[in-house]
Amino acid sequence: MERLPDIHEFIPEVELHLTRVGVSGVKKVIKVNVPNFGVITWIPTIDAYIDLPANKKGVHMSRSNEAITHIIEESIEKPAQRLETLCARIAKQLLEKHDYATRSEVKMDCDYGVYRQTPVSKKRTLEMCKVMARAVAHRRNGEMKIRKMIGAEVTGITTCPCAQEVMKQFSKKRLKNKAHDLGLTIDQIEKIINLIPTPTHTQRNTGLIMIEIPEEYDVNAEDLIKIIEESMSATTFEVLKRIDEAELIKRAHLSPMFTEDCVRNMLKKIIAKFSYLPDNVVIIVRNISEESVHKHNAIAERITTLGKLRKEIGS
Amino acid sequence: MERLPDIHEFIPEVELHLTRVGVSGVKKVIKVNVPNFGVITWIPTIDAYIDLPANKKGVHMSRSNEAITHIIEESIEKPAQRLETLCARIAKQLLEKHDYATRSEVKMDCDYGVYRQTPVSKKRTLEMCKVMARAVAHRRNGEMKIRKMIGAEVTGITTCPCAQEVMKQFSKKRLKNKAHDLGLTIDQIEKIINLIPTPTHTQRNTGLIMIEIPEEYDVNAEDLIKIIEESMSATTFEVLKRIDEAELIKRAHLSPMFTEDCVRNMLKKIIAKFSYLPDNVVIIVRNISEESVHKHNAIAERITTLGKLRKEIGS
Amino acid sequence: MERLPDIHEFIPEVELHLTRVGVSGVKKVIKVNVPNFGVITWIPTIDAYIDLPANKKGVHMSRSNEAITHIIEESIEKPAQRLETLCARIAKQLLEKHDYATRSEVKMDCDYGVYRQTPVSKKRTLEMCKVMARAVAHRRNGEMKIRKMIGAEVTGITTCPCAQEVMKQFSKKRLKNKAHDLGLTIDQIEKIINLIPTPTHTQRNTGLIMIEIPEEYDVNAEDLIKIIEESMSATTFEVLKRIDEAELIKRAHLSPMFTEDCVRNMLKKIIAKFSYLPDNVVIIVRNISEESVHKHNAIAERITTLGKLRKEIGS
Amino acid sequence: MERLPDIHEFIPEVELHLTRVGVSGVKKVIKVNVPNFGVITWIPTIDAYIDLPANKKGVHMSRSNEAITHIIEESIEKPAQRLETLCARIAKQLLEKHDYATRSEVKMDCDYGVYRQTPVSKKRTLEMCKVMARAVAHRRNGEMKIRKMIGAEVTGITTCPCAQEVMKQFSKKRLKNKAHDLGLTIDQIEKIINLIPTPTHTQRNTGLIMIEIPEEYDVNAEDLIKIIEESMSATTFEVLKRIDEAELIKRAHLSPMFTEDCVRNMLKKIIAKFSYLPDNVVIIVRNISEESVHKHNAIAERITTLGKLRKEIGS
Repeated sequence: MERLPDIHEFIPEVELHLTRVGVSGVKKVIKVNVPNFGVITWIPTIDAYIDLPANKKGVHMSRSNEAITHIIEESIEKPAQRLETLCARIAKQLLEKHDYATRSEVKMDCDYGVYRQTPVSKKRTLEMCKVMARAVAHRRNGEMKIRKMIGAEVTGITTCPCAQEVMKQFSKKRLKNKAHDLGLTIDQIEKIINLIPTPTHTQRNTGLIMIEIPEEYDVNAEDLIKIIEESMSATTFEVLKRIDEAELIKRAHLSPMFTEDCVRNMLKKIIAKFSYLPDNVVIIVRNISEESVHKHNAIAERITTLGKLRKEIGS
Repeated sequence: MERLPDIHEFIPEVELHLTRVGVSGVKKVIKVNVPNFGVITWIPTIDAYIDLPANKKGVHMSRSNEAITHIIEESIEKPAQRLETLCARIAKQLLEKHDYATRSEVKMDCDYGVYRQTPVSKKRTLEMCKVMARAVAHRRNGEMKIRKMIGAEVTGITTCPCAQEVMKQFSKKRLKNKAHDLGLTIDQIEKIINLIPTPTHTQRNTGLIMIEIPEEYDVNAEDLIKIIEESMSATTFEVLKRIDEAELIKRAHLSPMFTEDCVRNMLKKIIAKFSYLPDNVVIIVRNISEESVHKHNAIAERITTLGKLRKEIGS
Repeated sequence: MERLPDIHEFIPEVELHLTRVGVSGVKKVIKVNVPNFGVITWIPTIDAYIDLPANKKGVHMSRSNEAITHIIEESIEKPAQRLETLCARIAKQLLEKHDYATRSEVKMDCDYGVYRQTPVSKKRTLEMCKVMARAVAHRRNGEMKIRKMIGAEVTGITTCPCAQEVMKQFSKKRLKNKAHDLGLTIDQIEKIINLIPTPTHTQRNTGLIMIEIPEEYDVNAEDLIKIIEESMSATTFEVLKRIDEAELIKRAHLSPMFTEDCVRNMLKKIIAKFSYLPDNVVIIVRNISEESVHKHNAIAERITTLGKLRKEIGS
Repeated sequence: MERLPDIHEFIPEVELHLTRVGVSGVKKVIKVNVPNFGVITWIPTIDAYIDLPANKKGVHMSRSNEAITHIIEESIEKPAQRLETLCARIAKQLLEKHDYATRSEVKMDCDYGVYRQTPVSKKRTLEMCKVMARAVAHRRNGEMKIRKMIGAEVTGITTCPCAQEVMKQFSKKRLKNKAHDLGLTIDQIEKIINLIPTPTHTQRNTGLIMIEIPEEYDVNAEDLIKIIEESMSATTFEVLKRIDEAELIKRAHLSPMFTEDCVRNMLKKIIAKFSYLPDNVVIIVRNISEESVHKHNAIAERITTLGKLRKEIGS
């Protein structure tokens, strides 16, 4: 076969370095070992980039796709333990296949399911969430360094503490106005209001954690999922019998939270859970509240390192 | 200029009629007269289709685009009163420009804003919703018939009546268990629980109405927006002071609704408001509840005619 | 456990029938037997609806979710052969669990992968597409009737025949203008232009087929995928070596097609492939061309029955 | 009116600083002066955030919304000249309304239309694109500093240079194989192939530029739109007569570009156009090619400063 012209190798007209060049939205079928479920197939959406030196016109994109495919096919033969390990392997392979590049970057986002139990009827449900993995490989002086992140995104419910407090005042006032008719004392009213849950607005709420995994350390996405679930007013379920729904609402109303609280709760639990990770680990925590009293969302976020968090919290 | 080859006019290899051929996702800037606001510019997304006889290879799509552009440009000179009128004019123009077609169809979806007042602080807010218009033109025996629809989509809040009733039982039980300590009678407890709002889950809720407008009749999209707003547990606002938020939550909790209720409420109000419209008018009513206690949505829908609704409700 | 209040059973304030009430966007993990791959897990997005009589306030949505879960869990024990069989089983179960309903409807959309070979280098690639299943169950006089549909959506490439013909004229003219300098005759120029591929615009193109499956018949989604692939200018691949890419472009340029042609090609192949299916089978065929020369899409569609198609084409 | 409880002011359980807290997806109607069009209304989608100190439980989100509304309403009375000016005003107002915050951030994304002429028939068309504005305000030692960015996103067409070169080889070979029959010399074949456009794949292509605007400087979004349009193989149009389409395809095929080339072309034009801006100006340039020969996209990006670009290119 005669040699085909290869325009990618040309010197470009405009000799400027590019930060990232690659493919986005590649869908692949992968096999992953899921705890308590066995080997299953997922379909992640993958982005893969490398940098491009000023003197090269183009990236051989097919090599990037081959790198992805190669690692994925390997994982089908020998199911990977972790999504971020797959990312890291692809990032490494990208630098090997593109020897002119000094940096590669791989993102993998994936629907993921965890088994849970409904609060009262104890039915098993499969709750869907998202797992995200990232890897960045750097080549410097012939050596390759890889940084990995793992993340999760879970949807649950929040109840607004501010509106609940205002509603408490309202309910108290309403009872006080009728105190005489009802034969109630102020003291009785105070006790009643504190005994029963007070209404507020509730919303679909999504928490997200991304955490760096330094070499020789390990972070389990399932732990992140649990942290997110436990940092909201309550977790939600695909199937709820009436008795479960009542329990969920009770729990949520006894644990009202702003979107800000959810982020802080996640941060606190991260500090506790990952005490074994070093200070320079990067942490991204975000919470999105799809407000039921507004047409827009409320968002809170913290981007920092474990070290800074530890210092702030004095631990 | 010599004649360019025109492949669209060829006999196709496979001689089969096509139901619809056209363009989708065309964005245009239009000018519309909005009540109490004056002439404003909107950017609708437009779909425009015609049918294609079996013996014609292709549609001259550029003619469809010209039809859209022509009518839109006219409206910029002379602002249209109604979005569905624009649709109908484009549908007519499509049949004029494509003389081989017997049916044309135009859809226009548009962000739209209505001024509202917050419940207590009486601040003016601009609430965004969607307005949708449709027109279908038919040519039969040289005559053209056009059917139009107008619709609106509005987001507000619902509170679940079932969970609220279960929570009422729970709160009663809780008070009864402590009745002795609190010095309350069963009768007092019943009265207390009925006096103050009981918690439940609330959700972001979107109602939609599409209604046919027969020739010589008129339907105002603003009326549809009002019907949708008034068929939910409460309307929501972009800005809410604490006192407004409390009022909104109170209202919503005093008016709990299933997604099914919202549809039925809209239908009832449609029957009342549009008593002047004939029986054969097509009605589409849908309600989507973004459940806060689930990760999925709950949906209810009725597709029918005004006549059938009138018969069912006995009016 | 004492009986919880059940608001769903109440008579609604507005006594009107509802066309469909249910859940939308439920994600589940299912196991399906995929030919040449073995049992794999997919994550379909599911919608499930029933109708609601005028005298019932609400649908017990949790029963709908349980119906879905029950059938899905069964399929995990005993992998289903077909996605539409799962849909039909859920539709049946919905009518069994909601004895007041007369109609149920289930939709399942799923990412799906098929193995293909690149045109020249013969590398195996996994090409992603979508598979969609539908089932509608009717209860009449105590009997249940179920209608099923299966569908597929595949993305490939089209090349515009009209622009290509115009470009052919242009290239001819260009050669004719220089005919003297180049020492070419008109006859030579005609032959040259017909021998080599002429440029035109190419676009990402998505074809879709939905086909009804009558009881006692069978339709394989993989066959629909093949029909869609073969009805475009060419299929595309996730990985393409330069030699494959050239072959793909050559093929695509030798087989230019309008979006209209793609639909007609699919229809013709459906008539041929499904000669064993009865006349009343419903067919939906759509093609979306993401035009590279425009910012909007071009769409063609045919909705009909097999019988009508057979009559039109005279087969 | 008695004082309502204000939970936001409480000390949170977890005392940690938050990077950003605010609202996302707020839609507003604004009035902007558009050159050669007059005052028009746009509907941007707005995100607005502030940071939150460790000792404050929550942000008064309604104040953020009021800040947005206040500035927007002002602009309705007195149409703003620039979208980024609106952003900067809102960012300033956010820090004024939230005196505990030290940083605010505002994003505004907006559909935008520019008038263009088709290449041959010289018809006026309105081409839709996006305009994005950003502003970040910092408060340090009582002083406020605001950084602004303006950006644009435009869709056009690219043609692949690599596939075109390979196709050139193919066409040459095809002619050479028939050289004897056609009566052509090798030299004639070379000249023929170089004279007429060679096929390749074309794709819908989207370029994006974001550029920082230092205080006392000015950047016009319309200039960014032009730079993006001129950095692709060709611009596209909503309406194209056959003769325009042919011209567009000719142009695109005579100017083949990788997604990498588009980014570099934009960077080069930015260096030339904004020679008056200082070195520390941040530049983000991205190009997304919706490959017609693949199901995924190809992306290239450069994130840098004007100074670095100038140094690299030696200007």
